Amino acid sequence: MKQRINILTLGVNDLEKSLEFFQAGLGWQTQGIIGTEFERGAIVVFELNSGMMLSLYERKNLAWDSGLDQQPASATEFSIGHLVNTDKEVNILMEQAEKAGAKIIKPAQKTFWGGYGGYFKDIDGHLWEIAHNPAFTIEE
Amino acid sequence: MKQRINILTLGVNDLEKSLEFFQAGLGWQTQGIIGTEFERGAIVVFELNSGMMLSLYERKNLAWDSGLDQQPASATEFSIGHLVNTDKEVNILMEQAEKAGAKIIKPAQKTFWGGYGGYFKDIDGHLWEIAHNPAFTIEE
Repeated sequence: MKQRINILTLGVNDLEKSLEFFQAGLGWQTQGIIGTEFERGAIVVFELNSGMMLSLYERKNLAWDSGLDQQPASATEFSIGHLVNTDKEVNILMEQAEKAGAKIIKPAQKTFWGGYGGYFKDIDGHLWEIAHNPAFTIEE
Repeated sequence: MKQRINILTLGVNDLEKSLEFFQAGLGWQTQGIIGTEFERGAIVVFELNSGMMLSLYERKNLAWDSGLDQQPASATEFSIGHLVNTDKEVNILMEQAEKAGAKIIKPAQKTFWGGYGGYFKDIDGHLWEIAHNPAFTIEE
């Protein structure tokens, strides 16, 4: 198996509201809701700089498509790390996320591993870490 | 905020067992467990082909680092999509994952969107979709 992830699909409660969080709130670009030609196909896709895609798909549909029963939301299953090159950028993005409707879980502060970062939950309760790791530079 | 994810961190129960699943079971390359110079820093990092990283971090430590209470595992929060170029590769990877200890949730079959794919849960209960989408070619 190749060491590769092509798509990270986040289960969301309401596709339109989650789209608004990323598009209007975080300023991310997308075609909007696509796949509506299929009964349970409605999805939002963001093409990331790495060539990977982040998609939003309603939790009930993810459960249906995989054949699992929908389970209660849980914020400690995973986190999404977004790295920046300065502490200041961390502060700016934490503020932007909060204004967009995210909940600050851990305000930006020095991290135990020698960096600077904070955590927020997006409007569906998924955990994001915004961090500056002085040990390496992020290509913009 | 740039349209970028640098790290996807999966909460796991036992770092060594999860490392074994990816390294011995799926054949992924990694330096192994690093970060042990910090009390709760032990982590496994896989560098993906996109430049993104997948990391494994114990659920209890992810909860501690973010300041959240650890919540029960939930398989319908997200899924990780791994795309391949043929139906046959889907079958091969589903078999490989099962042999590595994954649980097949939905055996490989035609999908509603015109492709071919299946779902498994890794040993920590995270949902993976292996799929072939004839609409586009994956660069290996």
